[in-house]
Amino acid sequence: MTNALNRRGFLAAGAASAGALAAGSAKAANPFEPKEWGQFLGAGVDDEPYGTPSEYEAHVIRRNVPWLTADSVSSINFTPLADLEGFITPNGLHFERHHGGRAIVDPAEHRLMIHGLVDKPLVFSLDDLKRLPSISRFYFIECAANGGMEWRGAQLNGCQFTHGMVSCVQYTGVKLSTLMEMVGAKPNGKWVLAEGADAAGMNRSIPMEKIMDDCMIAWAQNGEALRPGQGYPMRLVVPGFEGNMWVKWIRRLEIGDMPWFAREETSKYTDLLEDGRARMFTWVQDCNSVITRPSPEKPWLDRKGFHMISGLAWSGRGSVKGVDISLDGGNNWIPADLEGPVMPKCLTRFNLPFDWQGQEMLIQSRAYDDTGYVQPTFAQNRAVRGVNSIYHNNSVHTWHIKPDGRVENVQLV
Amino acid sequence: MTNALNRRGFLAAGAASAGALAAGSAKAANPFEPKEWGQFLGAGVDDEPYGTPSEYEAHVIRRNVPWLTADSVSSINFTPLADLEGFITPNGLHFERHHGGRAIVDPAEHRLMIHGLVDKPLVFSLDDLKRLPSISRFYFIECAANGGMEWRGAQLNGCQFTHGMVSCVQYTGVKLSTLMEMVGAKPNGKWVLAEGADAAGMNRSIPMEKIMDDCMIAWAQNGEALRPGQGYPMRLVVPGFEGNMWVKWIRRLEIGDMPWFAREETSKYTDLLEDGRARMFTWVQDCNSVITRPSPEKPWLDRKGFHMISGLAWSGRGSVKGVDISLDGGNNWIPADLEGPVMPKCLTRFNLPFDWQGQEMLIQSRAYDDTGYVQPTFAQNRAVRGVNSIYHNNSVHTWHIKPDGRVENVQLV
Repeated sequence: MTNALNRRGFLAAGAASAGALAAGSAKAANPFEPKEWGQFLGAGVDDEPYGTPSEYEAHVIRRNVPWLTADSVSSINFTPLADLEGFITPNGLHFERHHGGRAIVDPAEHRLMIHGLVDKPLVFSLDDLKRLPSISRFYFIECAANGGMEWRGAQLNGCQFTHGMVSCVQYTGVKLSTLMEMVGAKPNGKWVLAEGADAAGMNRSIPMEKIMDDCMIAWAQNGEALRPGQGYPMRLVVPGFEGNMWVKWIRRLEIGDMPWFAREETSKYTDLLEDGRARMFTWVQDCNSVITRPSPEKPWLDRKGFHMISGLAWSGRGSVKGVDISLDGGNNWIPADLEGPVMPKCLTRFNLPFDWQGQEMLIQSRAYDDTGYVQPTFAQNRAVRGVNSIYHNNSVHTWHIKPDGRVENVQLV
Repeated sequence: MTNALNRRGFLAAGAASAGALAAGSAKAANPFEPKEWGQFLGAGVDDEPYGTPSEYEAHVIRRNVPWLTADSVSSINFTPLADLEGFITPNGLHFERHHGGRAIVDPAEHRLMIHGLVDKPLVFSLDDLKRLPSISRFYFIECAANGGMEWRGAQLNGCQFTHGMVSCVQYTGVKLSTLMEMVGAKPNGKWVLAEGADAAGMNRSIPMEKIMDDCMIAWAQNGEALRPGQGYPMRLVVPGFEGNMWVKWIRRLEIGDMPWFAREETSKYTDLLEDGRARMFTWVQDCNSVITRPSPEKPWLDRKGFHMISGLAWSGRGSVKGVDISLDGGNNWIPADLEGPVMPKCLTRFNLPFDWQGQEMLIQSRAYDDTGYVQPTFAQNRAVRGVNSIYHNNSVHTWHIKPDGRVENVQLV
């Protein structure tokens, strides 16, 4: 704790290294030496109608884990959290989870049908939906299996793989309460089946109470159309609930009086407990967090001195209220700074200035939300869930900082 | 005004067309007919490490105006505002203005030097900057020439061209006040020259007061690295001030005791008045707004009935406080709804539900900010500025809605 700094600590702690910068940098690259890009004209404004990242950022990509599933058409790619700043996930780096491959849907041929226990079943085209009152909201989406591989111990060395099944964008679409009003959902319509138009025909049962609270049919992410991997031309948005329920390429909503007990809410997306029973309908993505810098991808090899410890926190129940950082494996905790705007069911970045002098550390982040819920330890989660879980791992995560600055994924027992 | 609806007006006004949807849609596309994307598996998660838009969105691109400048390496491309939702500009659609082409800079070779009236000149690499305390903030950036072609009357038929030199992202970087503290700027250092590393060597003088207030050196936009067209690996962020001052590929900050009177603040980026004198250092992008739907790109050809009038407002002096809509060329005004979060020096979306029955209209938006400033008319702006202006046109804009739903750019005198 003596090494945690106040916000202005970089001046004292960093003065020496800042002084060294001039000399060190001059050796590496002479700022007075003409550079190629300063001597020759670059490309015109007409050569890239849709912009792309710099060639020097080719390493900032979504990655997958080939052994995780039997086939890449029913698998996941992960957001490179360690390379991201702020709380928005750029669309090109949004994680993807498909059950039948990334569907390429023609919006002119696509329809959303709403039927079942309604006064008037309706079929909507994308243009029909866009004509209705729309809203824009920032929400995170997290796969229920995020961190799932870690239930068996520290498996993967990098926050892209331990926590990269979470992304956060501004969604635009129509509230489902608006659509339910238009079709006249009947009072005994307590459940809604959401079904996708992809080859998997993904379907999930969602309680009407949630549908009416804050669900949306979205057609845009971060201002532009949804990407194919996120359900173009329309997807269900179920704020705070597991990503599997956010049905992509959505084509059908059926209103009924009980759940459908679909494959993805019985054989999958349930939590197998120690005694062989399974928890079903465990929808909420509880409060969670991860330190993205330092991390296995962002070691502190380069130098001692001032660093920012930085990461992301979120809660499916509301807003992140605070994040505490431990440098000693959970014995002592220091409050981090939250970066605003802090919004409900949205990623929130936290930062802690720190002066690192080569000490070995076990660093952790522990978030809590505005309901009072505090992110649990692995031991606390296992006490309830046993050792058979795949989903809903929101345990406090530990990075081991080595004296040389390397970072390893470890688990404290 | 009798046709403006409350938020729930779509039920009354849209009931007939919603009822018609089922029949109309069934004719166009049978939702029960199997679709190709529901019959065959899509692509796996490993085939697109960096995601791209749907092929059906190929029309949503930045465009340029070939006759606007002598060469495309010193020109601009425009953000397609009519196709955007919410307030974030996705990175691929961020407008670009280059003076020597889009520079491709190697971050390993790039440096930022800060010198002049300082105690200790310093040179920073990108990694050096990333080690310092950083912040993330949403800001719009607008070219001083946005709307400039309209000074001579209604020139271009589309909000992409009348207003598309504005974009809005979440920037991440270090505050310039932090860097100024590190170099020890001297008390007589009242001005800062910012210089780019591109072939144009773009440079501008910025008052130290602004530098210390809220300027940043940014390395990220919407979570990922800056795009080359926005100054990769680092750019100056000058919130609320004209985009030309947000020097891209920034390589040098020199602290001095007076402005440099650079080319871009004397022969360009000044406002030539009626009497031949020029206004200099007119930095602030004053309160402005545009209706993006309907617009020439988004006509109301498809049907009468419920529509959302939607657009964007912004102010370089603070937060948008409100936006009023006129349907009759400025005689009567109706307050629009603002979509939150409303943040200072950030785009803000406004919406107004409306029942259109084929009437001809002259629609306008008029924004005002939290300083009390109200967006002026063309007549008011011309009374002060004369007829020679190119820059800083924030006049109330008019779209002419024809009885058939087509939209034309017009100017009321």
